Amino acid sequence: MQRPGTHLQTVRETGPLVHNITNFVAMNVMANVLLAIGASPAMVHARDEAAEFAGLAQALTVNIGTADPDWGEAMEDCAGVMNEAGKPWVFDPVGVAATRFRRALSARLIELGPPVIRGNASEILTLAGLGGAARGVDAGDSVAAAEEAARALARRSGGVVAVSGPVDFVTDGSRAARVANGHPLMARITVMGCSLNGVIAAFCAGGSVFDSTVAALAAYGAAGEMAGRAARGPGSFQPAFLDALHELTPDLLDHAARIEAVR
Amino acid sequence: MQRPGTHLQTVRETGPLVHNITNFVAMNVMANVLLAIGASPAMVHARDEAAEFAGLAQALTVNIGTADPDWGEAMEDCAGVMNEAGKPWVFDPVGVAATRFRRALSARLIELGPPVIRGNASEILTLAGLGGAARGVDAGDSVAAAEEAARALARRSGGVVAVSGPVDFVTDGSRAARVANGHPLMARITVMGCSLNGVIAAFCAGGSVFDSTVAALAAYGAAGEMAGRAARGPGSFQPAFLDALHELTPDLLDHAARIEAVR
Amino acid sequence: MQRPGTHLQTVRETGPLVHNITNFVAMNVMANVLLAIGASPAMVHARDEAAEFAGLAQALTVNIGTADPDWGEAMEDCAGVMNEAGKPWVFDPVGVAATRFRRALSARLIELGPPVIRGNASEILTLAGLGGAARGVDAGDSVAAAEEAARALARRSGGVVAVSGPVDFVTDGSRAARVANGHPLMARITVMGCSLNGVIAAFCAGGSVFDSTVAALAAYGAAGEMAGRAARGPGSFQPAFLDALHELTPDLLDHAARIEAVR
Repeated sequence: MQRPGTHLQTVRETGPLVHNITNFVAMNVMANVLLAIGASPAMVHARDEAAEFAGLAQALTVNIGTADPDWGEAMEDCAGVMNEAGKPWVFDPVGVAATRFRRALSARLIELGPPVIRGNASEILTLAGLGGAARGVDAGDSVAAAEEAARALARRSGGVVAVSGPVDFVTDGSRAARVANGHPLMARITVMGCSLNGVIAAFCAGGSVFDSTVAALAAYGAAGEMAGRAARGPGSFQPAFLDALHELTPDLLDHAARIEAVR
Repeated sequence: MQRPGTHLQTVRETGPLVHNITNFVAMNVMANVLLAIGASPAMVHARDEAAEFAGLAQALTVNIGTADPDWGEAMEDCAGVMNEAGKPWVFDPVGVAATRFRRALSARLIELGPPVIRGNASEILTLAGLGGAARGVDAGDSVAAAEEAARALARRSGGVVAVSGPVDFVTDGSRAARVANGHPLMARITVMGCSLNGVIAAFCAGGSVFDSTVAALAAYGAAGEMAGRAARGPGSFQPAFLDALHELTPDLLDHAARIEAVR
Repeated sequence: MQRPGTHLQTVRETGPLVHNITNFVAMNVMANVLLAIGASPAMVHARDEAAEFAGLAQALTVNIGTADPDWGEAMEDCAGVMNEAGKPWVFDPVGVAATRFRRALSARLIELGPPVIRGNASEILTLAGLGGAARGVDAGDSVAAAEEAARALARRSGGVVAVSGPVDFVTDGSRAARVANGHPLMARITVMGCSLNGVIAAFCAGGSVFDSTVAALAAYGAAGEMAGRAARGPGSFQPAFLDALHELTPDLLDHAARIEAVR
């Protein structure tokens, strides 16, 4: 596995354009996160232009947090554009267990073979069992409990699956890694997971999907650790986190990364 | 009346899921406010899933700040779900005087008997007189001038009415209270009122509506006072306010609350 | 040209209501920017009420960053209301080069004669050449390279055109000025340009369009300089910028403004 700093260096040098169809809650923070890491964000979801815009982007993220049927169609259109061009996209199944609409849209997106799926343990467990029993909103499942589901989901989708939590788990179905970077305040703020999707997409624009995802998780968590040292609570954590993403260098990342290959 | 800290304690221990159909301006801040006070926020408005989601939540807020007809129908659907389940919901008639659309949607929502209506003095005066003369956008009416309108509105809606301002006024039509907590910078930042709706809903999920609303207003204002001491202006107030909500304890709240029973 | 502080003084004394049809990414920050400068913001876009609301406002901004066909029609309706009433509006052609939808909507809005068009150099170059060759998303064109295009566009639209960049350029087709205020971190945060539209609109509500636009750019850039001295990075810049807008006085602005008349 390459040093994670190499991936950050590529983002800084290339400034990839990342197209996001994300939820309303996340849009502003996610754009600032992408700028701070060195990428160029765009939020475009209208069916009249989304697929055309996808053709200009180096990577895409889709997030069902506040989707509706029109947005769902735009997500499928754009994912198709990326697939044809061989460009990466990241799927975030926010709250997939909560409603029939989310489960059906997520099932269609998985059929399109997302290069990366990222969610919390409950979401990955739900996705892996779609067609099976429905689950609650945020079951508080542990990452460890979702590892086997993540491997199975990765084999089915043909991509990488990342389970976010205190220690993240990433797998492509055969290889796997754990990333131990992060700070508890990251779970006390909204859209930290949503914004991470953008960083993963930016990293994947310049490298292999598994290694890039692992490096992105380490970078994000390392910035969280820097911010956690400066913050008094969840409010002051937010500006500190953007400052930290901006200050993070490839060298700082290489020293801070706590990545463990599994098996 | 119970000590307000008791209500905060309940929110911290139960982490109620609060479903919000709120305006685009407020979504991110409101989610962070709910996390900081100890609740679990969800922003869900699409008609294809909103009512189903409401069935999972412990409380609901509806806010017409950026509504359209589809959102209006989702609000009515979700309010109906909460009414049938006996769960609380909070209605915020943002800018109700400004357009026919807002007045008509607000009139329909009042017919559904919101357990809590919260607005500024001008909004409550407009609501109380719906069917009467229209008023300007933000007439700058004083809270005191809206007290009788609030009582009349509460008797008509069958719920609690809260009028926000330098000193808040809360009534269920017979009982009433004033809450003097707060800081002038809270009026210099957008969506402070919208985000308060979520805190009221979270408190109401665990207690009687009148007492819970009063306690929520005191908690919000007390956190504002803590943030005001740390802030230089409206920009630095915002992270300081989230830090303060996070740091607020039941004991701190009991000491800081300035609640006065009226009559 | 009047001292720029005179224009700020007018905004502070009159608190103009600024109606914004802007993108989802910008809504919250833009509302806080308008409050901090002393204006009263409203975000209203639903076709069922937008034109009625425009009748209440002193100025309007329209921004195509996350528009769709319904929003486009609301923009045209509201621009028509402002034109009939002789009230100012500001058009921001975000990413106009990216898609056919954006180019077509922008062409329709230019036909309505926006009193102010504000964009970056690439956007102004694209607008000036609409009907001509399409361009990339963010070509990184310099402001200087867009000066002639801005003059031509101003003559065609009959209004003022402002090109944002390290040194801004403003022209009404005959007169022109450069504004050198600003800070490099302003380019590392999302929606700084979008939010500026609101400040321009608020200034234009109380004075002639060319002078007001120049004064607004100087005020915005001066606040950026104040914030840049206090900030560690793009995260801490944001609260510092709102604090600076709030602290800015007419005298501070008159001393800080770096405005140069051209020709």
